[in-house]
Amino acid sequence: MAADCSGFPLVISSGDPAGIGPEIIAKSWSQRKAKNLPIFYAVGNVEAFAAVWDGPIAKIISPDQAAGAFDGALPVLHVEQNDDVIPGSPTLGGAQNAFQALELACGIAKSSGAAALITGPISKSQMYQVGFTHPGQTEFVSQRCGIARGNAVMMLAGPTLRVVPITTHIPFADVPAALTAELIKNRTQITAKAMSRNFGIENPRLAIAGLNPHAGENGNLGREEIDVMIPAIAELREMGLNVTGPHPADTLFHAEARARYDVILCPTHDQALIPLKTLHFHDGVNMTLGLPIVRTSPDHGTAFEIAGTGVANPGSMIAAIQLAKIAADHRQSSAP
Amino acid sequence: MAADCSGFPLVISSGDPAGIGPEIIAKSWSQRKAKNLPIFYAVGNVEAFAAVWDGPIAKIISPDQAAGAFDGALPVLHVEQNDDVIPGSPTLGGAQNAFQALELACGIAKSSGAAALITGPISKSQMYQVGFTHPGQTEFVSQRCGIARGNAVMMLAGPTLRVVPITTHIPFADVPAALTAELIKNRTQITAKAMSRNFGIENPRLAIAGLNPHAGENGNLGREEIDVMIPAIAELREMGLNVTGPHPADTLFHAEARARYDVILCPTHDQALIPLKTLHFHDGVNMTLGLPIVRTSPDHGTAFEIAGTGVANPGSMIAAIQLAKIAADHRQSSAP
Repeated sequence: MAADCSGFPLVISSGDPAGIGPEIIAKSWSQRKAKNLPIFYAVGNVEAFAAVWDGPIAKIISPDQAAGAFDGALPVLHVEQNDDVIPGSPTLGGAQNAFQALELACGIAKSSGAAALITGPISKSQMYQVGFTHPGQTEFVSQRCGIARGNAVMMLAGPTLRVVPITTHIPFADVPAALTAELIKNRTQITAKAMSRNFGIENPRLAIAGLNPHAGENGNLGREEIDVMIPAIAELREMGLNVTGPHPADTLFHAEARARYDVILCPTHDQALIPLKTLHFHDGVNMTLGLPIVRTSPDHGTAFEIAGTGVANPGSMIAAIQLAKIAADHRQSSAP
Repeated sequence: MAADCSGFPLVISSGDPAGIGPEIIAKSWSQRKAKNLPIFYAVGNVEAFAAVWDGPIAKIISPDQAAGAFDGALPVLHVEQNDDVIPGSPTLGGAQNAFQALELACGIAKSSGAAALITGPISKSQMYQVGFTHPGQTEFVSQRCGIARGNAVMMLAGPTLRVVPITTHIPFADVPAALTAELIKNRTQITAKAMSRNFGIENPRLAIAGLNPHAGENGNLGREEIDVMIPAIAELREMGLNVTGPHPADTLFHAEARARYDVILCPTHDQALIPLKTLHFHDGVNMTLGLPIVRTSPDHGTAFEIAGTGVANPGSMIAAIQLAKIAADHRQSSAP
């Protein structure tokens, strides 16, 4: 069980030091007043920040120094790197640094040194070369929190839409077999609980999209809705959840439809991520549901191709900090 | 070959007389000046219009009366119906009326009595009971124009996005087998030609989305991109077409991405229709590419549940009229 630490600063792992992580964290700090951001600190290589940013940096050695430093400088809990940082040029030393920063930030969030964890973007292909064995940061954080991988749920959230892909990073052709009633129920139950825990929405309105075009048109365009989805949704409703569907996926995401639901679950990755990124490419946030800690991340990668050029958009990082703060506060206010 | 008739009025089949077709056509006429609409006339049951609208109707008996009447009244080429019109309550007589109106409007557009055909929404389940045997109006119009069904391509267009689903109304599980190189090439070539013919875009920028999440991540998340899509796209490029892809579908539709392409082709129905309807639910238009005539339709159904209540939104019908006019004018200006 996580300690009550919602009043603590938020911790941000820098991600790959050669990616845009340090720049968007620093830019977020610069906008801390305009965006009304809570106190946060980074975990990473101080040099990576200095390489892309001229603003003030406070090198701290303990999380409890962050609050005092935040008003005048970006607090960075320094992690040594065994080679030089060149923005845009990933190295194995950089990957090791990102790995250590992630491990440290996650450990701090798990124990009591932060109200929430925000993870900067890593390069998985680089990380795999230095001993990282998880499919992504979500699975790493879940494992460190003692949560089975299948019980951690990826949600993408923007100001006007929250989506949960029921299947995630698997081949298209594998989706029909993977889309079991058990999976649908598991994802929906975890999502419903998280809506309450993270956002104070006690009886969330959950919509589930169909797999087939027009949700199968009564079986004429595919039978997964009839054979799997409708029975699963009936069971979820019997449990008392406010779930509807399967709905035709293409008419679930315009403004009026979005206003009807607190979160929309979709059978496939693209059904969920296409509308989210269409609407919220620059302010979408990835949030992991089902963990004892609050964890968010910006919804983009390392963007090595623009790192060091100063053009990285901090919108998604700022949104990730704001969303983490909201969830941390809700958990605090609902704590016994 | 269609006659040169771009200066002629546009013809609109009313769709099911008990649906919202008559209301949205009448509302479009009411906004003819505000929306700068070209001269058009409806084909359908005059009573169906009078049942939902108090404005002036000019019952005409020949297309050439439309232009003279349009300024002061909505011209309607009357089609008798053998039962009464009750908005919201579809009947077999209404389905027969819709069928006849479609047949007549299509015949007029094919011959020389209209610059373009716009089709109002029908109820397929009703139409099937009165002898209609096509999957939808698109296939009916294609057949009447002498175009093989496989060579008529559905495009959905809104003010900021045009999409073409490469597969359309088939079960999800059937998509991988249906997504052949031949189909990809056929859809892309027809689309490219139509961009030129209908919109004057001579070297259209065509993007093709991948089938799998992240376009397969080099085969780690599915092989259709490598085995089928990349070779097909290479062939299309060798033909001189400006085609790129396969791109990850989820990052193709935000504002900056949309600005890079004239049209985006997607392997599945939902990949294409989700972003289109997310952005353009009220002003999206369905356009059939590959026909000798211009044919558009609003991108929604009969909406029997709101027919007769006065709340139907004419946005998509107005957009369908405007888009048909643009295409008709482009065909005229590029005619030999």
